[in-house]
Amino acid sequence: MTDTHPDDILNLLADIVGTAHVATGAEAARWSEDWTRQAHWTPLAVVRPATTEEVSEVVRLANRAGTPIVPVSGNTGLVEGTRAQGSIMVSLDRMSAIREVRPEARIAIVEAGAILSRIHEAAGAHDLIFPLFFGARGSAMIGGALSTNAGGSNVLRYGSTRHLCLGIEAVLPTGEIVNLMSELHKDNSGYDLRDLLIGAEGTLGIITAAVLKLHPKPRAYATAMVAVPSLDRALVLLNRLQQETGGAVEAFEFMPGVFMDAYLERFPEARAPFDDRHDINILVEVGALAPRDAQPGPDGTVPVAAHLEEVLGQLFEDGAILDAVVAQSDTQRQEMWARREASAEVARLRPNVIDNDICVPVDKMQVFLDRITARASDLDPGLIPLCVAHLGDGNLHFAGWPESQDPEIHKAVKQAVDDAAMDLGGSFSAEHGVGLSKKPAMQRHKNPAAIQAMRAIKQALDPNGIMNPGKVLPDA
Amino acid sequence: MTDTHPDDILNLLADIVGTAHVATGAEAARWSEDWTRQAHWTPLAVVRPATTEEVSEVVRLANRAGTPIVPVSGNTGLVEGTRAQGSIMVSLDRMSAIREVRPEARIAIVEAGAILSRIHEAAGAHDLIFPLFFGARGSAMIGGALSTNAGGSNVLRYGSTRHLCLGIEAVLPTGEIVNLMSELHKDNSGYDLRDLLIGAEGTLGIITAAVLKLHPKPRAYATAMVAVPSLDRALVLLNRLQQETGGAVEAFEFMPGVFMDAYLERFPEARAPFDDRHDINILVEVGALAPRDAQPGPDGTVPVAAHLEEVLGQLFEDGAILDAVVAQSDTQRQEMWARREASAEVARLRPNVIDNDICVPVDKMQVFLDRITARASDLDPGLIPLCVAHLGDGNLHFAGWPESQDPEIHKAVKQAVDDAAMDLGGSFSAEHGVGLSKKPAMQRHKNPAAIQAMRAIKQALDPNGIMNPGKVLPDA
Repeated sequence: MTDTHPDDILNLLADIVGTAHVATGAEAARWSEDWTRQAHWTPLAVVRPATTEEVSEVVRLANRAGTPIVPVSGNTGLVEGTRAQGSIMVSLDRMSAIREVRPEARIAIVEAGAILSRIHEAAGAHDLIFPLFFGARGSAMIGGALSTNAGGSNVLRYGSTRHLCLGIEAVLPTGEIVNLMSELHKDNSGYDLRDLLIGAEGTLGIITAAVLKLHPKPRAYATAMVAVPSLDRALVLLNRLQQETGGAVEAFEFMPGVFMDAYLERFPEARAPFDDRHDINILVEVGALAPRDAQPGPDGTVPVAAHLEEVLGQLFEDGAILDAVVAQSDTQRQEMWARREASAEVARLRPNVIDNDICVPVDKMQVFLDRITARASDLDPGLIPLCVAHLGDGNLHFAGWPESQDPEIHKAVKQAVDDAAMDLGGSFSAEHGVGLSKKPAMQRHKNPAAIQAMRAIKQALDPNGIMNPGKVLPDA
Repeated sequence: MTDTHPDDILNLLADIVGTAHVATGAEAARWSEDWTRQAHWTPLAVVRPATTEEVSEVVRLANRAGTPIVPVSGNTGLVEGTRAQGSIMVSLDRMSAIREVRPEARIAIVEAGAILSRIHEAAGAHDLIFPLFFGARGSAMIGGALSTNAGGSNVLRYGSTRHLCLGIEAVLPTGEIVNLMSELHKDNSGYDLRDLLIGAEGTLGIITAAVLKLHPKPRAYATAMVAVPSLDRALVLLNRLQQETGGAVEAFEFMPGVFMDAYLERFPEARAPFDDRHDINILVEVGALAPRDAQPGPDGTVPVAAHLEEVLGQLFEDGAILDAVVAQSDTQRQEMWARREASAEVARLRPNVIDNDICVPVDKMQVFLDRITARASDLDPGLIPLCVAHLGDGNLHFAGWPESQDPEIHKAVKQAVDDAAMDLGGSFSAEHGVGLSKKPAMQRHKNPAAIQAMRAIKQALDPNGIMNPGKVLPDA
């Protein structure tokens, strides 16, 4: 490690990527805050390499100089994983190519800066899907999705980003390029570096390209809003639907009544899901893959939708559900999804939102909700909890609007959410990652031997500690 | 690291696990060779701990003494991963409990020594499956399956062992116990140590317990033998079946005519799959999850089987397949599977079998086979290639019977198989792992930067190099 003057570093960076692709000051503004605009910082520079080799050279330079690097792609994260005070931000946005889609092999080969919705379009052109869907898909890039092992609404059927990736290419903290661009479904040739780099939030290297798994596009969707009396009954509904459809449930999302109220206040032109207000509103979607489930009958009814109506009708007669509406058109389907996808925006309508991203075993969601509602109300009786959840996989986003102005109370609520999840065998971070904002929870809750092993790995791969330093791992 | 005399070590081991559970000499015979009986060794001792804490104490002792440890469970591996000359073998066979099956959460919590077929039974009692099936399932244990990320015949639908595991507990080379026994489908709390330990073949620690994912048992199977004119046509058949069934193909296995000949020679009472001999015999199985695909009609026909017959009938009329037989009973289904599952035994009917376990992209299997057949025949014109394959996931087991007695020729054929796979973007190790026997291939073919990163991780987690030393990673 040598002592390099910052100005020298800027010149050397410009030599690698070209002057036009080194941004500082006002030019770096769009990379100087996160999506929530709650966190701000001043990077030393933002460099925008065009190739993996350029990324490698930038990393080698930083490693020699001992200058921290923070990788960034879409910058839509929620845990301050891209905070970069005084650091070189390496933006992957110029490496956005979708290099190849091979429909018969069901793969796409993409660069890290490819925007998620562009990958969706490229797959869609071949009647395939890349089933990683979440609100920020119009700006989120695959590099960040891989680095945080992003989840979203379809994990229930397709798994997280990790499960949608066959191979990666990455630049390690020493500048070495690891080529693990396998297209194979079976490849046991040494340690699983792919999955180690996926979800490491840029602290072990920079993912530059990936081989993604594509799935057949369902030939038809059946989408419904269902009101149920409790989350336990929602689980019965989910299991029943999985049984009846042979596991074809694509999404199973929970929106509480208090969220629907806030949504309708924000979007006065929007419709309520039911005539009556319900506390527990479920968005359920079933995807039909086989032709005979999707082929409209003589009366135009699509079998998968007719089947969903039939099952929901039976459940309604049995008193197992309170109400149900099946989408009769794609417009109605989009209307249902619009509610769910507004959740991040709605949560931030009031200041000081206390947000969490926890996971509990699916069968413990009701007890979790009961406990945390009681506990939050003890701490701040005026707090409004907006608990939107990917219910099918046990992932709940607790977004509380506090009445109290006391930051200590906010912190206590946040901790109480994590504690309640951990008590039930859950996790304090389901799909957003750890970044900076969940380091305290990592310290409190993660198995100490696991943290020690992670630190050893970090030290081994990043001896100079330059790669997104201070993120993920609690300070020693 | 202190210098401990071997006798002292044996006494100390006996203090930890009890004298009855330390085997040496003749008592250690069953752990002193591998399944193929081609590899033999003399361990210092075999210790059989009863708890994770005992495993931890044994590892701490070995780490202090600098004595190598080789973990072993069912010992059914094929790459000499348990060769243990002078080492302490830690057998997990006494830690065989299936601690819990939670059908509503679709998980099983098991210890590393649980035999695969016992896990199958435990899941089956709840109409669930643990879909990891291969020939050795009656003696293979889950610890070894996890450590090698075992594959088998159902990877096409359910993934490898890695994809069937939600959480693990493991003892690291320093004796620390890492508890990662998560039941969650979303858990992004730090580096993915689970997947790093899975597939590390016991070189980074000893997996002691796991949370396994269970799947609904298909309500009915439709199984058939199909003869096709080429492997490319087999892929067309697979894609057609996946489309028609909505991705319900459970297995798609290839047996060449020359394998069927050898099978029928070995089992003279067995039946040939077809009246005529064919070069390309495919075993295909479709699993019906939804009730309406499995409910027998008035004439007793199960829809999934009727549907498979119909599709195969069309393909036969179109000339796309040469022949097909759909199993009409479970006995007929078992008969079809018996052929496939005899492959390891059949391959070893002649001495000096040259076996490989490669993977290529599915759409490159025909060109791989053409190339390797030609190349092998150049090297040894009398060689008989028995290329049984998990065709649906691109995994081929080349098992050649050489005519040549020259070990150099055998080695050249082995290398030619790996080279041909690598040329096509494949892997020299699909599902068996690297162990000792594939280290030369690892050296030749694996990305050097990846090997360097693996070595750094090994050094970080196992500073004294005691954990299954000399396996997986090529010598520096």
